[in-house]
Order: sequence, then structure tokens, then C-alpha cells
Amino acid sequence: MIRAVYPGSFDPVTNGHIDIIQRGAKIYDEVIVLVAENISKIPLFTLEERLSMLRESLQHIPNVKVDSFKGLLVDYIKKIDVRIIIRGLRAVSDFEYEFQQALTNKKLYPESETVFLISDIKYTFLSSSMVKEIAKFGGCVEDLVPECVAKKLYEKFNVKR
Amino acid sequence: MIRAVYPGSFDPVTNGHIDIIQRGAKIYDEVIVLVAENISKIPLFTLEERLSMLRESLQHIPNVKVDSFKGLLVDYIKKIDVRIIIRGLRAVSDFEYEFQQALTNKKLYPESETVFLISDIKYTFLSSSMVKEIAKFGGCVEDLVPECVAKKLYEKFNVKR
Amino acid sequence: MIRAVYPGSFDPVTNGHIDIIQRGAKIYDEVIVLVAENISKIPLFTLEERLSMLRESLQHIPNVKVDSFKGLLVDYIKKIDVRIIIRGLRAVSDFEYEFQQALTNKKLYPESETVFLISDIKYTFLSSSMVKEIAKFGGCVEDLVPECVAKKLYEKFNVKR
Amino acid sequence: MIRAVYPGSFDPVTNGHIDIIQRGAKIYDEVIVLVAENISKIPLFTLEERLSMLRESLQHIPNVKVDSFKGLLVDYIKKIDVRIIIRGLRAVSDFEYEFQQALTNKKLYPESETVFLISDIKYTFLSSSMVKEIAKFGGCVEDLVPECVAKKLYEKFNVKR
Amino acid sequence: MIRAVYPGSFDPVTNGHIDIIQRGAKIYDEVIVLVAENISKIPLFTLEERLSMLRESLQHIPNVKVDSFKGLLVDYIKKIDVRIIIRGLRAVSDFEYEFQQALTNKKLYPESETVFLISDIKYTFLSSSMVKEIAKFGGCVEDLVPECVAKKLYEKFNVKR
Amino acid sequence: MIRAVYPGSFDPVTNGHIDIIQRGAKIYDEVIVLVAENISKIPLFTLEERLSMLRESLQHIPNVKVDSFKGLLVDYIKKIDVRIIIRGLRAVSDFEYEFQQALTNKKLYPESETVFLISDIKYTFLSSSMVKEIAKFGGCVEDLVPECVAKKLYEKFNVKR
Repeated sequence: MIRAVYPGSFDPVTNGHIDIIQRGAKIYDEVIVLVAENISKIPLFTLEERLSMLRESLQHIPNVKVDSFKGLLVDYIKKIDVRIIIRGLRAVSDFEYEFQQALTNKKLYPESETVFLISDIKYTFLSSSMVKEIAKFGGCVEDLVPECVAKKLYEKFNVKR
Repeated sequence: MIRAVYPGSFDPVTNGHIDIIQRGAKIYDEVIVLVAENISKIPLFTLEERLSMLRESLQHIPNVKVDSFKGLLVDYIKKIDVRIIIRGLRAVSDFEYEFQQALTNKKLYPESETVFLISDIKYTFLSSSMVKEIAKFGGCVEDLVPECVAKKLYEKFNVKR
Repeated sequence: MIRAVYPGSFDPVTNGHIDIIQRGAKIYDEVIVLVAENISKIPLFTLEERLSMLRESLQHIPNVKVDSFKGLLVDYIKKIDVRIIIRGLRAVSDFEYEFQQALTNKKLYPESETVFLISDIKYTFLSSSMVKEIAKFGGCVEDLVPECVAKKLYEKFNVKR
Repeated sequence: MIRAVYPGSFDPVTNGHIDIIQRGAKIYDEVIVLVAENISKIPLFTLEERLSMLRESLQHIPNVKVDSFKGLLVDYIKKIDVRIIIRGLRAVSDFEYEFQQALTNKKLYPESETVFLISDIKYTFLSSSMVKEIAKFGGCVEDLVPECVAKKLYEKFNVKR
Repeated sequence: MIRAVYPGSFDPVTNGHIDIIQRGAKIYDEVIVLVAENISKIPLFTLEERLSMLRESLQHIPNVKVDSFKGLLVDYIKKIDVRIIIRGLRAVSDFEYEFQQALTNKKLYPESETVFLISDIKYTFLSSSMVKEIAKFGGCVEDLVPECVAKKLYEKFNVKR
Repeated sequence: MIRAVYPGSFDPVTNGHIDIIQRGAKIYDEVIVLVAENISKIPLFTLEERLSMLRESLQHIPNVKVDSFKGLLVDYIKKIDVRIIIRGLRAVSDFEYEFQQALTNKKLYPESETVFLISDIKYTFLSSSMVKEIAKFGGCVEDLVPECVAKKLYEKFNVKR
């Protein structure tokens, strides 16, 4: 049984993330979606909110679990004995950062392997920060995030639609 | 049992390719190294030579097979019922081309999934064409390719070392 | 009345080109699609074939003309008194080449202005050379090029579908 | 009559922005320079200062208007019935961000079209943040921004020259 | 006698920086490592700490001096009559920023010349911010920074190892 | 005395190359401009023509020599006991190729050091192949190459100006 983790801040989860998770769930026996507690920017959603939106959005995929971690990713995956890290790639700028992260994780935990998947072309332009920017000014985010996330976003920004 | 293919022209196979194949063989049950018969440039080595160098260089990895294909990659993998395509990433310029290929393969065969792996940092600069350039002028390729490939390269270029 | 040219080799025209032409035709009074006679690689289709496929594919857009040119683009546009050059952008690698071309054209004809448009996200991966590669091996190009082009491609490569 | 908007934070306007505005004003009947009120970083200059520096620097171009907006750009342009968004491109890193913005605006307002122009090669290296960095330490910004902006910058940073 | 400066924030110095300094010290008669006092982000280490870690890590290279500067780099190098600025390049994203800086310095001080060196391939992924991230969570930084820096990092973050 | 080589195909030399050579000649005691005999594409100008255009264009710089080499660059520089290789950088696409070359040369000859210089911003768009394209169709290359090169180019292409 091959298990993989898919780490991120998911502030909030978008349809692009869910696309990557679905792809991962098809090629691995189990995918653990890992929410990072410590992120550099102050998140819009609390850890609890991020976990709960993920759980609601992913309940249709049986071999997916949601968890959170604090500290170094490699320490978490060593502990739960997983070696595969899934990351999505959208564009060149993603790539350089991801490349650096993958090489660092390899350095800290040589048994780890980062596996990059490409999301559907229609999510190329999609990011959590863009979704927040649109929702904040009352724009339509319905094709961009799961329904429960859209509702939460408008609530957070006090937007009536 | 999850099988994956690793397609390429392998003209000739380098230590960077072998690094990717070893990584693939650790995370998949079987890796089929696929030599493309139809490549745009005239190869230095015949299909037979490329297959034979691969077989010799990969005999230490039990779950690896070597095969060749002609035509569209997606037609080959449909036929043998494999959905995962492995590709190595070294640099930004690689990435754009690989991105385009992956989206095309997805378009032609929606069940396929391209999985990108990153080779060891020491192979970042390595390519088959550079190895040929060095060998042609009698430079040392011993750290860059398997021993049997180095020998074949010097033979091809009539270089005595 | 503002006129613009859209130069290219169109060997053959793809749905991505047609998307750019349609966008141009909405924001300019006339778009002249310009087929370059002198291209570095030997084309698959003759100049006449490329012109005729373009004319057939573009007959539904009234303010589009098709023409060909030989020599420097700037000499052609000076002669017909057009200053706007339309180019489509898909990816970073496109960008660098296009940037160089635009600066050169500006140098040779300071009144010219290159205007970049972005095609629909679903054409990001599409190129004439990829379409030829797919058609050659009997793959499906029907979503990628106009119908008359698909037919011509299969004819050229002797592919029965 | 074709009108276009050129949105930005203009904190402050540079000669590179003015170059793009002049190019836009030659190929469109009217260019509306749009100052974004809501920007992520705290600006050096207030909205009023940014508008006033733009108005003073652009008074020699008759078909240019200066305005500000709050909220989503696409909502503003829908309201004033403009479909063309002008953006300047300088380098690869610009390109990826701009690409994402253009695709998002297209998603939110399918009738919109982002048109990219390339500034004069001598402004390739120029950005508002670099100009602020130079002025802060008393460096010469006179070739980089309009005269009224240079004066304002030195005032802001209490620099005597 | 040709002297060169190598400016940076060095918060803290990494083995990648030291590699570049060693390369510079081989091709120039003197290299002045210049710590920037004014940096945009609040540093982890004070100026004094950064200077002292550099001095300790560089004592084995005789033709290297350590100094700090405030304000514009070009003003400092004009004053000490140095024209060569050394910068290390690791990746494409580095390159665009460095390109902009080099052109700006050239504009402000036409006699200056920025010279780019490439660090050893094994430092490609290394940055001060990544080192801080790893140390903060108790990861091993011993191959990544000089010994005195590793000790200081664990102290700063109250990590026992 | 520090000597450096500046290798290239110079088919033909452009003002961008000369700019890099002048910069190099200011920071090194001697610059050897090295014409590669073996280049992948068939050159427009013979080795003799390329050498003679370089000599004529560089006669105003006393500490510059012109030579040619065949085989591996590192073998040539080992023989003449030079360790510094100068390369010009213009854009991101240059960078990746140059990065790979520099790492390869380092691998083959660890004492070598590649030093990158940036040409004047006005040569950013300039390349030998673009100059040939322009001259072939009778466009003006007078600002782009030395006078003797312009004359030779028009001769080669039978262009009367």
C-alpha cells in the first residue's frame, strides 16, 4: 500500500487543489491532505476552519484523509512513515520554488520523493489569494471553490450575494 | 499493482536518466523504460544500441523493463493498460516543454497522468547532447554515463583514452 | 479606422490562432492575417495551401483579410500603412522570443507597435508542430484545428480515420 | 470610438508608465489611467497625491483621463462600458503575474480583453519600488520619473539635492 | 590591484555565500564582503551578529575584508574606489532581480560593473531564509552553514540538539 | 596579470559582443576572444572571415587578442593557462543554457570560473541570427554591428543599399 501526503496552507482550498487531490487519489492507495499550522502570512481562516472546509469538500473521495502539522514536513512524514510528497504545478514561478523545496526535503530526509502533478488546464490561473481578492469585493467565486468555501468566504468578508 | 512508463530517446542513457528510473522503481511496482523509435533528430545510436545500453545499465533494478515504441505514446500506454507517465525535471526550460506534452497527452488520453520527478541535484546540468559533445572531443564522461555507455561513446567517435 | 496585422507561418492554422484572430477582430476595425513565405524550416503545407486553409477557416469573420509576405515584416506594414502588429502569448518561452521580435521591429520601424493578446486558456498547450506530430500518427486533432485543416492533415500523412 | 483603461497603483508614476500611456494613446481613442485605491502594501503617496502627480505628468496627452477605483477592476470597466485593459510587460516575472490576472479578468468578465504593450527598452529595469529605494538614499531619479514626481519624492524622504 | 565588493544581507551567511566569496577571492586581489544595514525585512540577526559570524567564517581567506554599508551601494563603492560588484546566481528567479539591480547600478554609476558567479551545484537550493526555517523547527543545518552560524541559529530559536 | 577568454561563434560579431569585450577588457589585463571552429550550424561566414571581422572591429582595444579553437573549450584554456571564461547574459533563456555550460566546464576543469557580464540594455534584443535575418532582406543593420560587418553582410546577401 503506497500512501502520499499533499501539504499546503489551504487558506482556503480551491477547485485546483481538489483536482490535484483527485488525481493523487487515483494513483496512490491513500492521500493525506496536510494543512500547515505554521505559515508565514496570517491566514484568513483558522486552522479549524481550513480543516473543516477540506473535510466537507473531500468527503466524496474515500481514500483521502485530512490532517494538520506543525514544524518541518519531513519530521511529520518520517513519523507516519510516508515517503511520497505530492505537489501541484501550475506555472514557471511555481516551479522554481517547488524545486527548491523538493531539494531541501530530499536533503533533510533522503528517502522522501516529491512527485509533481499538473492540474487541469482550466485551473492554471487559480490561487487561494486570488479567490480571496475576488470574494472580498463581491465577485463570483462559484466555479473556483467548493460551494461550502464560497459561502464561508462571503461570510468572512460580509458580502451579500 | 501500479505500473508506470518512462519514455525518452535515450541517445544515450545518462546517469541522470538512471537516477530518475531508480526513483520511479521505488515508488511504482514496475517501470517500463520506453525508447522512442521516431525522434526528430537523427540519433547517434541505433534503436538496438540504445535498447542494449539501457538493458545493461539497468540490470541491477529488478522491477524495470525496457521496450521501444513507434507512433503516439498514448496509443502505446493504452494498449498495455498503463496510465502513469514518468518524466524528469531539471530546469525551467524543461518545464515548459514538459507541461505542454503532459497537457497534450491528457487531451488525447484523459485517463493518463504525468508524474514529474526531480533528479539528484548533481545531475541538473546533465543531458545526452552534452555528453555526446564532450565525448566527441575526448573529454571525460565517466561520471556522467554508465561505464558501458562511455565505452560505446568513445568507440563511436574513434576516441582513444 | 484602425487596422492591424497578425503575422505567422500558419503551418497549419490552429484553433489557438483563430481564437487570437477573433479577439483581434473585435478590437480592431480590420485584421490582416499575414502568412510568411520565407520561414526557416521547410513547411508541411505550401504557401497556397496555408492561405486557402486560412481563408476557409476565417470566412465567418467579416473584417479579416488573408495575405502573404516575403522579406521583412516592417517593410510590408510600412507599405500598406499599418502600425499595429498582433501576437498571441501562451507561455514564458513564447514571451522571450516575442519580446526580442517586438524590440527589433520597433528598432527598424519606430512607429510600429506590437500588441500581445492571450488566447483562451484551453489553447495554452496548442501549437502547429504538436498538431502535425499528433496527426502524423493518426491521433485525433478534431478539437485542435478547423475541420478543413484536420482533413488536409490526414490526407498529407496518408492517415485513414 | 475605442476606449481602454490602464490600471495600476502608480506609487509613484514612472517614465516607464508614461511611455506605456503614450503608446496606448496612439492606438486607442481614449486611455483612462486608473489608480487602484485598494492595494496590498501601504502606499508611500496618498491616493490624492498619486492622482495629482499623474494629472500633472500627463497633461500633454489630450486623449488621456485619470481616475481611481476601488474593488474589482472588472466591475469598474463594466460600469463605464470599456472592454480593453492595457498592461505593460517588462520581463518574464511580470509576465506570469499578468497572465494570471488577464485570465482571471476574462473569467469574471468574458467580454474584457487584456492587451499587452512593451515599453521602450530603456525602461526595462524601471519600477516604482526601485525609484523609491533610490530617492530615499538621495540617489538621482531625474531620468526615471517626471520632474514633479522627483520633487515630491525628495520631499517625502527629506532629501536635499 | 583589482578589488571587488560582494554585497548582501547575510542573515545569516550560508555555505553558498562562502563558496561565492572563495571563488571571488581567487579571481580578484581583494574581496570586500559588504553587509547591508538597511534591509526591507527585519533581520533575525543584528548587524553586529551578522558581521561577527562573517568574520569568523571567513578568517581562512586572507584577501577578504568584511564591512557594512547604509544607503546606496553605488555611493559606498564610489567612495572606496571599487568598480566591481560580485553577485551569485542560483536560478532563473534570482536572475531577473539581479539583472534589474545590475542595470540600476550601472545607471547610477556607469563605471560600475556587476560580475555574476555561479556557486557549486550543491548550493543551488540554499538560501538564508530556508536555513532559518529549518533551524527554527530543529532540523539539521550543519551542511548548510558554517559551524558558528549553526550554533547561533539554534541559540536564537532556543533549539536543543 | 589576470587573463580571460570570451568564447563564441561570432557569426558575425555584433555591437553587443563588442560591448561585452570592452567591459571585460576594463576588468581583466587581457581578454582573448575565441572563435569556435566547430559549431553545430553551418556558419554564414568562414572561420577566416569571422576572425578578420573581429580583428578589424577590436583594433581600438589594446589588451584584446583574437584566436580560434577546435574541440573542448576547457582543453584550450588549460593549455594556455587561463581560468576565467567570460559570457554575456541578455535574457532568461540565455541564462539556462549558460548555467548548464558553466557547470559542465566546472566539472571538466574544476579550476575554471565562468564570469557573467550584462551588456548595455540597448543590446538586450540583439543576436547574430537576428542581424543576419535583417540584412538578408535589406534592412538596416548599421547600429547593430560594426561598419565592416555591415558591409560584409550586404555583400554576402547581394543586397544593394
